[in-house]
Order: sequence, then C-alpha cells, then structure tokens
Amino acid sequence: MAEKAVRAGVVLRPHFKTHQSVAIGEEFRTFGVSAIAVSNLDMAEAFAAAGWRDITIAFPVNQLQVDRIDGLAAGIDLHLLVEDSQTVRLLEARLESPVGIWIKIDTGSGRTGLTSDDPRAVCALAGTIAASKQLRFEGLLTHAGHTYKGGTPEEIKGIYQASVQAMRGVRDVLEGAGLAGALISVGDTPGCSLVEDLRGVDEIRPGNFVFYDATQWRLGSCAQEDIALAVACPVVARHPERNELVVHGGAVHLSLSHLPDERGAPMYGFLASKAEKGWGPIIDGALVRSLSQEHGVIRARPELVKETAVGAVVTVIPVHSCLTVNLMREYRTLEGERIPCYPVH
Amino acid sequence: MAEKAVRAGVVLRPHFKTHQSVAIGEEFRTFGVSAIAVSNLDMAEAFAAAGWRDITIAFPVNQLQVDRIDGLAAGIDLHLLVEDSQTVRLLEARLESPVGIWIKIDTGSGRTGLTSDDPRAVCALAGTIAASKQLRFEGLLTHAGHTYKGGTPEEIKGIYQASVQAMRGVRDVLEGAGLAGALISVGDTPGCSLVEDLRGVDEIRPGNFVFYDATQWRLGSCAQEDIALAVACPVVARHPERNELVVHGGAVHLSLSHLPDERGAPMYGFLASKAEKGWGPIIDGALVRSLSQEHGVIRARPELVKETAVGAVVTVIPVHSCLTVNLMREYRTLEGERIPCYPVH
Repeated sequence: MAEKAVRAGVVLRPHFKTHQSVAIGEEFRTFGVSAIAVSNLDMAEAFAAAGWRDITIAFPVNQLQVDRIDGLAAGIDLHLLVEDSQTVRLLEARLESPVGIWIKIDTGSGRTGLTSDDPRAVCALAGTIAASKQLRFEGLLTHAGHTYKGGTPEEIKGIYQASVQAMRGVRDVLEGAGLAGALISVGDTPGCSLVEDLRGVDEIRPGNFVFYDATQWRLGSCAQEDIALAVACPVVARHPERNELVVHGGAVHLSLSHLPDERGAPMYGFLASKAEKGWGPIIDGALVRSLSQEHGVIRARPELVKETAVGAVVTVIPVHSCLTVNLMREYRTLEGERIPCYPVH
Repeated sequence: MAEKAVRAGVVLRPHFKTHQSVAIGEEFRTFGVSAIAVSNLDMAEAFAAAGWRDITIAFPVNQLQVDRIDGLAAGIDLHLLVEDSQTVRLLEARLESPVGIWIKIDTGSGRTGLTSDDPRAVCALAGTIAASKQLRFEGLLTHAGHTYKGGTPEEIKGIYQASVQAMRGVRDVLEGAGLAGALISVGDTPGCSLVEDLRGVDEIRPGNFVFYDATQWRLGSCAQEDIALAVACPVVARHPERNELVVHGGAVHLSLSHLPDERGAPMYGFLASKAEKGWGPIIDGALVRSLSQEHGVIRARPELVKETAVGAVVTVIPVHSCLTVNLMREYRTLEGERIPCYPVH
C-alpha cells in the first residue's frame, strides 16, 4: 500500500482503528508513514502520547469533547471532520489551538456527510470554515463504504472511481467559488487494495488492510495468504452426529459480524488448516455457524469433526478483524510475543 | 427473582456474565445470594478474588486451563461442566483439589451438551464421574436457550416446562441406574422471568434479568420500565432529509446483536425518551437502523430529528445488555457513580 501511494504521489494516512496498537503503529513508520487517522478522541490521545504528531480524527466532531480536543490540538497537528455549520461555530468559539478542518462528503455510502450531489451546500460550509481564524480549511474527506457492497472486484473499482470523480466534481465547484486548494482524502480498504492507480486524490486512508479478514477475502480485496489475523479457539465439545464442534470463541471474541454462507445463512468465521507455523489455507466447508456470548459452533466435514479432539485448538479467520481486535485487546505473534491494543473506544 | 426462588425452594445462582462487576455482584448478597455462575475461568478467578466462595463455571471445561482450574479449586467450592468422558478422565488425572461436576444436558437448544433424548449416555458419563475420587458428581445442568425463539410468553413457558420435564426424565433414569441424588440446574432469563412456579428443579441460573434489554422486552420477559441499562450516545450528525441522526455509538459500543424491525430488517437498539432522571419510555418509531465500528445511524420520526441538535445526547436501549456491557466496560449510575466491569473474557 505504501509503495502504491508513493507511485501515485498520494499521502498514505493509514487508519489505526483496525489495530489500535502502538507497537503495530511503529511498523508503519518503517514504510515512511508519519500521518494517521483514528476514529475517536481517546485513540487520538493514545497515539499522540506514543509520538504521532499528525492525526486526523476521521469521525464527525463530538461537541461534548471540545475542551479535550483543544488540549490535544495544542500539542499536535490535529485534523477534524465536520459536516454542519453549528459545529464549525462551536469549534471557532471554543478552540484556542489551531486545527485543520475537513468536510465529510457522502459519495453514495449513505452513512453520513454532505452529499456530493449538492456542492453548493459544501461551498457554504467551506466558506464558513475558511472565514474562521483558528480553523484551517483543508479539504474534502469521504469513506466510500459502499465498496463493501460491490459484488466483484470490477464493481468495487467502479464504485471507488465514481467516488473519486464525485469528490473532484465538488472540488471543482469549490474552486469556481474562490475556495481553491481543497485536498481530497478517500480511503476504504477494498477500493485502495484493488485500484492500481491511485492518482487523482491527495490522500488515502485504508485501515483494515493491515490484517485483512474473511470479508476482504470474499470481496477479492486480498488473497487468503494476506490475512494476518486469526483467533485460536480451544475445542470444548464435539457433536459428530451433526458435524459440529463447539469452541470457546463467541460473540465476545469474534464479534457478531457475519457473511452469508453458501445457503445465505449468517456465518461468523472460517476455519483455517494447521501449519507448522501459524496457519494454512481455509478449510473447505468448515465455518462458524453460530455464536453466543462465549460459545462458537463450528460446522465442518465429518472427517474434520472426527479427527478433532476436545482440548485441541482450531484457528478461526474472523469476518471483521477490526471488531475482533477491539474485543480481544491483545495480540500474540507467531513468535509468541504479546502485544497489547488500547482499551479505547 | 430472589423471592420467587425462595417461594419455590430453589437456589438462585445468578449468572454474573451479564454484569461482570464486583460492585453489582455485592448487591446480590443483600438478596441472600451466595452462589454464582460465570462463563469462563477468568471471571471465576475475578469473583473468587472478590470473596465469592461457591462458583459454577457454566461453560464446558477448557482442557488447556486444567492447572489454573486446580489452583482455583484449592480456594473455593468450584463446580465444573462436562459432557464427555475424555475430559472427565483428564480432570481426574490432573486435579488435586476436589471439584463438583455437572453434566451439560441439551434439552432442545441444539447448542451443546448430551441430549436429554439419550439418558443412557448421560448415565454412562455420570457413572464415570461418580467412580472418581476428586470429582463429585452433583447433577444435570441445562440452558434452554430455545426459549429465546418463543413467539409468545405462553410458548416460552411451554419450552421452559418441557425442558424441566426432560431434565427430570433423565434424572429418573439416573436414579433407576443407581445414581440417586442428582440435582437439576436450569436457567434462562425468559423462562425464569415468565414462569411463576419454579418448583421441580433445584437451582436456577438466570443472568440477563439483572438489567434486561430490548430482546427481553420484545419476548415479554420484562416490562419496558424493568430495563436498567442504556447507552448515552452523542449526536454527531443530522440528516433530516432521510429522517436520520448519526450518533457516536457503534458496533464497539452496542455490539451487532439485532432484532427484526417492523419490516424484518435488522435493528440494533431503541431510542428512549428524556426524563428528569435516567430515561423515559421507548420512543415510537425511533431505532438504530445500522452500525459501523463507531457510527450508529438512528431512524426516527421527522419531529424528533428536527428537534434534536448535533451535540445533544440520546439514550439507546441495547438489544443485548450482556454484550453491550462487555464492550463498554464501565457503568455510570444515575447518581453519577462510575463502576468498572472486569475486562475478562
């Protein structure tokens, strides 16, 4: 991802909400990364304490945190996300330290942001920001989360490109209105993974690609062997009569993120085969079919159920690595090193 | 629940996996509770350290933890759950301290346990346990989780009663085989909440009833005003054109537990109205329609969206209080007191 960003001349500002770990954050520095995105103020404070000096909180400003935001902005280059003028006025009235401001644009995901279909509303808000003393208008930011609904890699690339085009369209209108120099920040892992040529924007903010997961593999964003995170689950019961194993690995470990199985029913993770170190390929027909708080029920081929003893450990590839990490709160590397992740929301 | 248990002459052994809190655990003592259930060894150790001396780990033994189990059993009256003879033999070979052993019975939930339809298999396992020196065979334990699929309170009561009958049937077969005195432990919150007369078993283990939640309210296990847990979520964006609010309250706060909305689509929590202290009734037509890692999207009536400002705080009643507590890890009482919950899985 870092090489691709360099090739395109765009800034890679990885989203650290996926790993939430200072140690893993340090690995990014070796790839030339010095700017990061996070999804809340606690995380921003934690990474600032770990020496990161250029942080975007890529989540609309929580007005109740304005004093803490001001405190953090005194020490680092802090960038905030807004989408309404009331919040802009509050920041202007209450912040003493300068901050960079991005406008959140919705290019079709439908979650939040000002729609790219109404550039004049964006112009109005950008004008309010630009007129402020402490607030520095920096640009337009989007998360094209609808790439996750792309059925094929080609479709995902099409959604990504359409999103970039929409962002450039809004920027052109801003320029026409005398607001030149707005940067464009995009960044979803499927789009950034699949699109080869990332030119046309100023910054990308993928996060999940640090580990990938079953969702990304299904989408075609990564190969199986790119998945760098799994949960080791002890087998606590066997039910050969229905081809099932029960593991200690439930909703409090894997999260309830799910994908459709071959019949459209929800499934919560794949089983990976054993390997001398780590794990091997995903096992055909072996998946987590249901979760309760601590139980995971695995459906597998009769041979696998037969040969797996109670007390064995199986490897589950999670559906959504970000939520799994948030629940597990500690990594163990294949070398046995334990790495904490921040208990911050 | 405590009064109902006393009336029926059954032991109330509340499941502490819901609240995971020493302080809330203490409240149970004032109702005469001295025995508890937990769902993993970490939790058992934490509550043992807080002075609880009679603990059932109501989850099949994880063989990899046998040494820690032995350590804990040296200090308290520890009860374990098994469902296979291999685990029984391992416990017998490795434990030095005595433990109580319960056999996990599946009365129809289909998650795990020996089926109540095959009492002879239960007899065989009970015989193996009874023949052991350190292991004390105590009885039969079930979680009739299929009550959660009951469409009406009458159906739930029927499932509960059928489950109790099945357990008594297995006990009768044990008695016939010379294994007299087996106790019966049951305990799901819907069944224990709705059934008035709890006679016929020895112990109940409901957990969720400490707070209840949207799921229990939908099932009819509780009234709205019995729900004692909500998440305060700051509003960070408004979309009046589509009757939506965006809050800082996502999958890492509420969990992805969901219920069907009126059209069968998943929904992740209800909005409650304001009250002078705490919150008031659930607002008609206001619910969490989608979650991402930190965003919650709320769909509500136009008037509510219109009158709710960015920066306001809304109250979300979670779908599943156990998973929400596990994610939030700290309570704030209506008096402003902060209560930690164990960061244990």
